[in-house]
Amino acid sequence: MPLASNASVRGLAAAEVASLGYEMVLGNTFHLFISPGHDQIRELGGLHEFMGWSRPIITDSGGFQVFSMGHGSVAEEIKHRRGAGESRVISITEDGVAFRSYLDGSERFMGPETSMEVQAALGSDIALAFDECTPYHSDKRYTALSMERTHRWLDRCIGWHAEHGPEGQRVFGIVQGGVHSDLRARSSSYIAGADLDGVAIGGSLGQEKAQMREVVGWALEPLPEERPRHLLGIGDVDDILYAVGQGIDSFDCATPTRLARHGTAVIADPGRRFRLDLTKAECRGSREPIAAGCPCPACRDHTRGYLHYLARRKELTGARLITLHNLTFMAELMRGIRAAIAAGAYPAYAEGILAGAAPWDPPRFPVTGRG
Amino acid sequence: MPLASNASVRGLAAAEVASLGYEMVLGNTFHLFISPGHDQIRELGGLHEFMGWSRPIITDSGGFQVFSMGHGSVAEEIKHRRGAGESRVISITEDGVAFRSYLDGSERFMGPETSMEVQAALGSDIALAFDECTPYHSDKRYTALSMERTHRWLDRCIGWHAEHGPEGQRVFGIVQGGVHSDLRARSSSYIAGADLDGVAIGGSLGQEKAQMREVVGWALEPLPEERPRHLLGIGDVDDILYAVGQGIDSFDCATPTRLARHGTAVIADPGRRFRLDLTKAECRGSREPIAAGCPCPACRDHTRGYLHYLARRKELTGARLITLHNLTFMAELMRGIRAAIAAGAYPAYAEGILAGAAPWDPPRFPVTGRG
Repeated sequence: MPLASNASVRGLAAAEVASLGYEMVLGNTFHLFISPGHDQIRELGGLHEFMGWSRPIITDSGGFQVFSMGHGSVAEEIKHRRGAGESRVISITEDGVAFRSYLDGSERFMGPETSMEVQAALGSDIALAFDECTPYHSDKRYTALSMERTHRWLDRCIGWHAEHGPEGQRVFGIVQGGVHSDLRARSSSYIAGADLDGVAIGGSLGQEKAQMREVVGWALEPLPEERPRHLLGIGDVDDILYAVGQGIDSFDCATPTRLARHGTAVIADPGRRFRLDLTKAECRGSREPIAAGCPCPACRDHTRGYLHYLARRKELTGARLITLHNLTFMAELMRGIRAAIAAGAYPAYAEGILAGAAPWDPPRFPVTGRG
Repeated sequence: MPLASNASVRGLAAAEVASLGYEMVLGNTFHLFISPGHDQIRELGGLHEFMGWSRPIITDSGGFQVFSMGHGSVAEEIKHRRGAGESRVISITEDGVAFRSYLDGSERFMGPETSMEVQAALGSDIALAFDECTPYHSDKRYTALSMERTHRWLDRCIGWHAEHGPEGQRVFGIVQGGVHSDLRARSSSYIAGADLDGVAIGGSLGQEKAQMREVVGWALEPLPEERPRHLLGIGDVDDILYAVGQGIDSFDCATPTRLARHGTAVIADPGRRFRLDLTKAECRGSREPIAAGCPCPACRDHTRGYLHYLARRKELTGARLITLHNLTFMAELMRGIRAAIAAGAYPAYAEGILAGAAPWDPPRFPVTGRG
């Protein structure tokens, strides 16, 4: 799922996102609560109508954003991007979080009921329960206390939703517990026991890929097979392939679109960590496309040399073309993954991609085999 | 012609510009000389191939940009947009202009031969002869001296092109002379007598619409009927309609795309000077499209309320959608103008637009009439 945090996938119209093959986007409860406000979006017919997107929408709970202001990570990004005043958390209590808006400095409040109310007004198809997203540097004691509070908040979210939630809106809970196996197991068990339509794995997944994979494994173990499992904020090609193998069903991530805006294309090259930085000098005089065979407009009509120039000059057209490429790559990758699973050939597919096969190459699943 | 100053119409891929119906774009000799450099573009196959645009390209001579650094107008824009060091003119001589690059502060030089050499490397279909673009506040004495030098530069451009110009590249001269009727007449006569494929009217056209129209009238009078006449940098709806009536054949202008990036849509409303500022509060809760009946994606799929939000947040998707709308409006306007001229009904068409008719409404030219 591409991020449409502020009601748009940056640089693309909703119809284009659909035409790339995406079936769902992720909207952001926190950002839309701050601006234009959920009342405004409700008046304009809900988030689908507001952004001209008729397919499903999942909305993040707002927890990640509201807490990362206090813990300091997304705040940096927001500050940089918006050039607005700094946001900060005023207090965290059992009720929820009081904070200053990054837009106008006004005091705002978000708790589990607020989050669900905003998501109800947005009319998303999947709402995520409000959670505290503890960062990597939290100690185990704080992570445990926070996780228990997140579980209590989950119950309040479910309660609010049962009474006020829009018909048809599904609710997913978020597994927390940081990088601690016992906490992850406890959180997953709690989520598994709650009346929920699906599960998302959130919070700190560690500082490196190996740790992330271990944490996801702990979180998945107690979860029931039949409920959809979403992994929040993970979008590297190899991580997706690994997590799908572990049993994750869906992903959202800023990486493909954010990388694009900074001039980096996703490519089928594990030796380069699946990334091509088009701003680098090696692309300067290149008449090659980003990737031969890629069906996106950037690869169909343009060279690395041109995109290098646009990316260096921070031209809008560059950000857009590389965004189209990266989202095409990811859409093709996921399409390939689904086809491979359906064909019972997922390991071979994943292996192929990890060895450098392009996702738009026709998959060569064995139709007859010795196994 | 939309501006593709830096080898792209901001936010659009070349194929999209073509799909809107545009037959030519304007590339900028000065900007492309500074970055990525004409040698680089030649190596990459010329400007058409570089930007993936197979239709005709006209290249501005660079005179407007190089001189407005000294005279101070485009420099402001460049500074603001690029965040780079200030450019400035070091000296203007009979040879040309020495200046410091806004990119890296290096000393660069552009004269008539340089300009033609750059345009030859770019491989544009129409090259404009190098000119000094005198601003409104120049006195008549300086304007006259500068104009005479521009005429001498024209001869050098023609001479260089005859010897080195790429086959098939056409050359247009630029009429200067500021807001002085006798100078405009003299400059047009000089251009009319030169061996050129077409004529462009440049320089200061005054400070208000009435003066612009008067100046264009002076400039047009001595020009031969059979050569194409281009009016540089004019793009307001009413100005275009007036100038076409006077005998102008083509236009280029930053306005439709620049307005779009700042949240203003071009609309069929003469009472609003054909502009709708989507960032204004009146659009906040609006479920109307920018313009009912407009075939662009912004009007087809999105509301003013959504575009208001995107424009206020400076979201890329907003800049892009409004750009698509504005370029659709201008393309439809020009299509209507051509059809009306072909039908011998131009005055009625112009009158209709000036009275608020939308350019995509079927033109109601009288098939039978009393006249």
